[in-house]
Amino acid sequence: MTLNELRGKTVALASSGGLDSCTVTKWLADRGVQVVSLTADIGQPDEVNIDDVRKRMLACGAKEAALIDLKTDLADAGIAMLIGQTRYEGGYWNTTGMARYITTRGLLDEMNRRNIEVLAHGATGRGNDQVRFQLVANMCQPGVAVYAPWRDQAFLDMFGGRKEMIDFCNAYNLPITATYQKPYSTDANFLGLTHEAGKLESLDVAADFIEPGMGVLPHRAPDKPELFSVKLNAGRPVQLNGAAVDAVMAILKANEIGGRNGVGIGIHTVENRFVGIKSRGVYESPGMCLLGACYEFLIQQVLDRRARKFYDSISASLAEQIYQGYYCDLATQMMRGALAPVAKLLTGTITVAAYKGTVLFHSSQDVPHSLYSEETASMEDVGDYDHRDSEGFLNVLGVGAKAQHAAGQIAMEK
Amino acid sequence: MTLNELRGKTVALASSGGLDSCTVTKWLADRGVQVVSLTADIGQPDEVNIDDVRKRMLACGAKEAALIDLKTDLADAGIAMLIGQTRYEGGYWNTTGMARYITTRGLLDEMNRRNIEVLAHGATGRGNDQVRFQLVANMCQPGVAVYAPWRDQAFLDMFGGRKEMIDFCNAYNLPITATYQKPYSTDANFLGLTHEAGKLESLDVAADFIEPGMGVLPHRAPDKPELFSVKLNAGRPVQLNGAAVDAVMAILKANEIGGRNGVGIGIHTVENRFVGIKSRGVYESPGMCLLGACYEFLIQQVLDRRARKFYDSISASLAEQIYQGYYCDLATQMMRGALAPVAKLLTGTITVAAYKGTVLFHSSQDVPHSLYSEETASMEDVGDYDHRDSEGFLNVLGVGAKAQHAAGQIAMEK
Amino acid sequence: MTLNELRGKTVALASSGGLDSCTVTKWLADRGVQVVSLTADIGQPDEVNIDDVRKRMLACGAKEAALIDLKTDLADAGIAMLIGQTRYEGGYWNTTGMARYITTRGLLDEMNRRNIEVLAHGATGRGNDQVRFQLVANMCQPGVAVYAPWRDQAFLDMFGGRKEMIDFCNAYNLPITATYQKPYSTDANFLGLTHEAGKLESLDVAADFIEPGMGVLPHRAPDKPELFSVKLNAGRPVQLNGAAVDAVMAILKANEIGGRNGVGIGIHTVENRFVGIKSRGVYESPGMCLLGACYEFLIQQVLDRRARKFYDSISASLAEQIYQGYYCDLATQMMRGALAPVAKLLTGTITVAAYKGTVLFHSSQDVPHSLYSEETASMEDVGDYDHRDSEGFLNVLGVGAKAQHAAGQIAMEK
Amino acid sequence: MTLNELRGKTVALASSGGLDSCTVTKWLADRGVQVVSLTADIGQPDEVNIDDVRKRMLACGAKEAALIDLKTDLADAGIAMLIGQTRYEGGYWNTTGMARYITTRGLLDEMNRRNIEVLAHGATGRGNDQVRFQLVANMCQPGVAVYAPWRDQAFLDMFGGRKEMIDFCNAYNLPITATYQKPYSTDANFLGLTHEAGKLESLDVAADFIEPGMGVLPHRAPDKPELFSVKLNAGRPVQLNGAAVDAVMAILKANEIGGRNGVGIGIHTVENRFVGIKSRGVYESPGMCLLGACYEFLIQQVLDRRARKFYDSISASLAEQIYQGYYCDLATQMMRGALAPVAKLLTGTITVAAYKGTVLFHSSQDVPHSLYSEETASMEDVGDYDHRDSEGFLNVLGVGAKAQHAAGQIAMEK
Repeated sequence: MTLNELRGKTVALASSGGLDSCTVTKWLADRGVQVVSLTADIGQPDEVNIDDVRKRMLACGAKEAALIDLKTDLADAGIAMLIGQTRYEGGYWNTTGMARYITTRGLLDEMNRRNIEVLAHGATGRGNDQVRFQLVANMCQPGVAVYAPWRDQAFLDMFGGRKEMIDFCNAYNLPITATYQKPYSTDANFLGLTHEAGKLESLDVAADFIEPGMGVLPHRAPDKPELFSVKLNAGRPVQLNGAAVDAVMAILKANEIGGRNGVGIGIHTVENRFVGIKSRGVYESPGMCLLGACYEFLIQQVLDRRARKFYDSISASLAEQIYQGYYCDLATQMMRGALAPVAKLLTGTITVAAYKGTVLFHSSQDVPHSLYSEETASMEDVGDYDHRDSEGFLNVLGVGAKAQHAAGQIAMEK
Repeated sequence: MTLNELRGKTVALASSGGLDSCTVTKWLADRGVQVVSLTADIGQPDEVNIDDVRKRMLACGAKEAALIDLKTDLADAGIAMLIGQTRYEGGYWNTTGMARYITTRGLLDEMNRRNIEVLAHGATGRGNDQVRFQLVANMCQPGVAVYAPWRDQAFLDMFGGRKEMIDFCNAYNLPITATYQKPYSTDANFLGLTHEAGKLESLDVAADFIEPGMGVLPHRAPDKPELFSVKLNAGRPVQLNGAAVDAVMAILKANEIGGRNGVGIGIHTVENRFVGIKSRGVYESPGMCLLGACYEFLIQQVLDRRARKFYDSISASLAEQIYQGYYCDLATQMMRGALAPVAKLLTGTITVAAYKGTVLFHSSQDVPHSLYSEETASMEDVGDYDHRDSEGFLNVLGVGAKAQHAAGQIAMEK
Repeated sequence: MTLNELRGKTVALASSGGLDSCTVTKWLADRGVQVVSLTADIGQPDEVNIDDVRKRMLACGAKEAALIDLKTDLADAGIAMLIGQTRYEGGYWNTTGMARYITTRGLLDEMNRRNIEVLAHGATGRGNDQVRFQLVANMCQPGVAVYAPWRDQAFLDMFGGRKEMIDFCNAYNLPITATYQKPYSTDANFLGLTHEAGKLESLDVAADFIEPGMGVLPHRAPDKPELFSVKLNAGRPVQLNGAAVDAVMAILKANEIGGRNGVGIGIHTVENRFVGIKSRGVYESPGMCLLGACYEFLIQQVLDRRARKFYDSISASLAEQIYQGYYCDLATQMMRGALAPVAKLLTGTITVAAYKGTVLFHSSQDVPHSLYSEETASMEDVGDYDHRDSEGFLNVLGVGAKAQHAAGQIAMEK
Repeated sequence: MTLNELRGKTVALASSGGLDSCTVTKWLADRGVQVVSLTADIGQPDEVNIDDVRKRMLACGAKEAALIDLKTDLADAGIAMLIGQTRYEGGYWNTTGMARYITTRGLLDEMNRRNIEVLAHGATGRGNDQVRFQLVANMCQPGVAVYAPWRDQAFLDMFGGRKEMIDFCNAYNLPITATYQKPYSTDANFLGLTHEAGKLESLDVAADFIEPGMGVLPHRAPDKPELFSVKLNAGRPVQLNGAAVDAVMAILKANEIGGRNGVGIGIHTVENRFVGIKSRGVYESPGMCLLGACYEFLIQQVLDRRARKFYDSISASLAEQIYQGYYCDLATQMMRGALAPVAKLLTGTITVAAYKGTVLFHSSQDVPHSLYSEETASMEDVGDYDHRDSEGFLNVLGVGAKAQHAAGQIAMEK
């Protein structure tokens, strides 16, 4: 979609209130496009005052500007990720991917209420976010068209990058806070904060110069373990350190405790973007990391080997679905359907110690669906497991093992 | 197999030199079985002097006692695990599983040289080790029978557990070091050390009372990050902190540096044993954890999305194969065949910082097969990626996305 | 469990009414065990009159004998298999595995009503069925003990095999129909019939001598294609050739039409039994094969690539779960949870032609959730797919492709 | 890439000699582009005389025209597919996908010899072939640019479809054989032939009107089974019906025998194209289907359960790789590395009966790596499998099963 097709129309701009948002709003407004700025409130930890975004966008020429509270939706989505342990390529907690999905759905709902049929966004043409905006719109409201100035030649002709945008905004006295020097860019919501680009693009460079937004780097954390306890009921956190919580509170509190102990702060990953490019991210997600460890300790008690294997394959696949913006398609529905019986069994209290970036298991109580049994596990001769049965067990396994030898199938090197 | 079938025969005992080994040797010798004690030297970090094992076993009645150096085999196996990132159920580095395989193969070779046809071991009847001993023997030398006293009623009638064995050894003045009080049991080799059983069986109890054998718990580590650098060539470590190493040296040195910084020390896991029981282990594997992080940081640069996905599934499956004692069957050969092209690409130098249990990426140099490109990754308009191509890319993806909407396949809830 | 533990107790015998059932009943009854014969009515196509089984078992010494109608349960289970395309190792429709599960659950319910705590069965000690009986009992009613005469030395001492059982039954004038000559054994329910053992054990021998029980071999079928049409609603068959059906009727009718056209009759498989042995089966499942092809033709229209991939992995895994007797554990619950959103979309009418063992697609109507679009699929320039977008699409893919070349990752051989 | 960038350059045209090839050659030549026509000889069964293609292309204005013999390469690739049983989405033998890969690699080699840097092809903008041409070029010779007239506006402005091309060729008297009426389009090589588009686009229509190019539809085949026997050595066919063969001969002969018996002729599939569109294909691949069944019957004897599971996942993944044009990337190298140990074990002779579209197992001889053992498989009491060991085996399995019940994890519905 190009500028020419927008003139005279009303466009909803997914607005963070930053340099891109200001630039795009002004640039579109000056070219006869009616811009309605829509900003998701997803607990951005890098925003001093999210209400200011509305004022700024109006000052940049937006016809209207609204703030949409999606904190509960995002917290619920975060819990779903914890239940599925959906870390992308085994590491990153996918916090931006999920937030983009929740934001796009929330914006589409608002656009529906306002009868707006074009969604504009400031994501660049080689990142993941453009994919997520577009796919979610195409899947959920295919009548909505998507406009991305960073893929529009008219916009690209005027703006090469950061410098030209700041010049432009300054020329019009727009209320930007950006400065010419910026060592890297960030994206944040209360599930996590990502640092990328700029100086981080060189892999010769440690990420120790970043300024964490959700806590401290491990070496800045107190030299004393801090206990953290979460009570889960059917997969959802209901108490933290003994106090009742809802999903939003659980994540915020876990962010606070994890963050101050360096948990999940400054995690480096080189990952495969959807478009086939490798990129480097440095991530913060203290609450997800802290709660994630607790969930894992509970899951270890509940899942037998067969269930675990299938669960692990779903974790990996669902993480990819989230990362790539496919969170409402049939494949995701299937995966979520598979996780539902697991979630029902995740009840119990897990206590861990957070200490300078590590999370150590402390103890576990009241896990009704646990398969762990002290008696059965014991190597001593108690419980209902008769050691001599193993003789028959092993003989049966041995038949197949010996057959493989006889068939010349065994590897001779060690 | 039972005692009666053994009388008059020569048996090779897989001997650690501990309480079980002493008891079984004496008990068998007294019943007319010729015991040849075979002890694998796999760099057990809990053994003060592994040569003493020979003397002790002879004192217990072994006819002969030999020490078999398997350190190189085990180090090579450790490297193979690093290349495959084969952590069982996503966590445990499988160090005992692999050591049991290497040990059994080494013992079978020695038995072959000595024409011994029965392998005895002191593993219990509900653990994993009995499975590994038996399967490896069945697969690699099916003519060898396996005798496990802990599954033999004659032995079980005399020995209920630890106490009876100590009484027995003391009555005969055997050179045991075991004491009646033992809070838990350990198993060790230079890849890792496991703590389990005893007081660790209660999940109400933190594992902070264990005495690490390969390093210190994180809170005992120095309050200063220590840099660690490894140069890999085609998957194998060739330099550590700039000094040339072979596989054994690499693992020993990484154990030392990882261990003193609390890396991989005291990792709690509740895992699914092969026989279908849950058990709790507390693990140490400082070198594997430290090197493992370095390998991962390199792998992240090298594997594209398709390769990564397949690689991840192999990591999980191969870890299970190792854990269950199937390291020479066809499935493992297939998985190792799949990893070979990956290993060839793992060349480069990775530097990390070890700090109180965490391992943080520091920098990466000379990675010829890296897919990461600063230029392409950059969000700014350089490199050979034209942002506008994304418009076509997304339109193509959009056709399928819209078709799913039209077919009523999209989930309506968020 | 052994005979000694049974004396004086009441035992429910899973009874087919055949030679084993007669022998075991008489043998147990004579040794002071009260035998309650329970026979599942699962539409066995090889039984002339299933009601006769009751009389025969009473004649053999059973205290009581009951017939339990499980046809609806089994048909529903068959539909679930069709939805999941759960063929074991890609081929066999798993009809015995599922029937054993349904039967065991049905028998356990009946035993519960009758307060019987021991389940006896005549499955041998190296097959799959013993595993299924035991696992289902252990999982669903762990208080029920399982007795298998073929694993009991007392029984084995008396009966080496078929000949001794016939002698025994004849000696007591029991109403058996078995004869000394039997080329192979069969097991049947209305989902399928299996032939194995005996002369079939040699792989040098074609299976053309079997006598099909559910239809004719392909070369005996009419030389004229027969159309078969099924209308599905949310995964369940609601009409066959235009006439309303329920699940039982759908399977019976499909058996009839498939069977007379040689569809799914005489399928040879060498498969991996649960206990690690290879065995050869020759299978009949005309209805499952005929309906299965129709389901597949519908599924092809409905599942996009992501969903298909996940679906295919579930088909394979769930088939293994069924085969091995794990149909009520957590892993299966997860897999069935994943298939539920697929089932909802399986609506439409599929028509095929059955001809001498083959099933060819004929046509498809009224598939509301189909992703197939004549307009989009067309290579001609219509629909909402702009050919030029492919240029951008391919350029984006090309960035990753070229990076792999630059990184020296491409295979040079073809 | 567009026409303007081509003027004055030399372009290699991947030429089939059909309507597209003629049109594109003439159109480019008239616009100042030097066209070198390159045609792969891949045993196209629909070509009366492949040498004529050269003459035709020269007549259309090509500067040069060459025929490149790739039959051996394609046959080897076909054998690799048989070893991996790589059928796309479980059905289609991927013959076009593989041929496109082999063709592109062969053409790139030839272009390299001739110093030509642009590859042109006539594949349309919504199919799979454009993806394969482009990806293979990008991966193997990224310096080669790809030109696709069907994605170039200048070409699209002149040619809407078939009719305009015929008009154009007739106007210039070009030697085309195409006629205005064409019910569907085909693509062929000796591995297989595909029919799609045109009248086949409607799913209301049976494909019985297609004219098979590689055999007869099942109902046209003789009413008599024909035996077919293949001897494999380490995965490669070495004898057919007792006569020595190489790979090319094996496939050609299997095509002949399979084809005349209706095997693999007229297989309908609705599949997911790479670009996210569903399309319908009707396929012929008699030799691959016939040999594929033989391979499967051998594989069933050789692969134990663990190997089979991994193998099946590779079959599915590698098929997707082939379909999508990724046959030389790292993921494929990994998969082929995994299949290498399997191939080594595929030795033996399999005989089947081909009959009116079905392939039935007949017998198997001389399979040295078979795990099948008549003795062990037997339900009677022989071999080295002690039935009573199953008691211990099942008791061990039972511990986990009962734990799941105790933990409230068992599904209550059947």
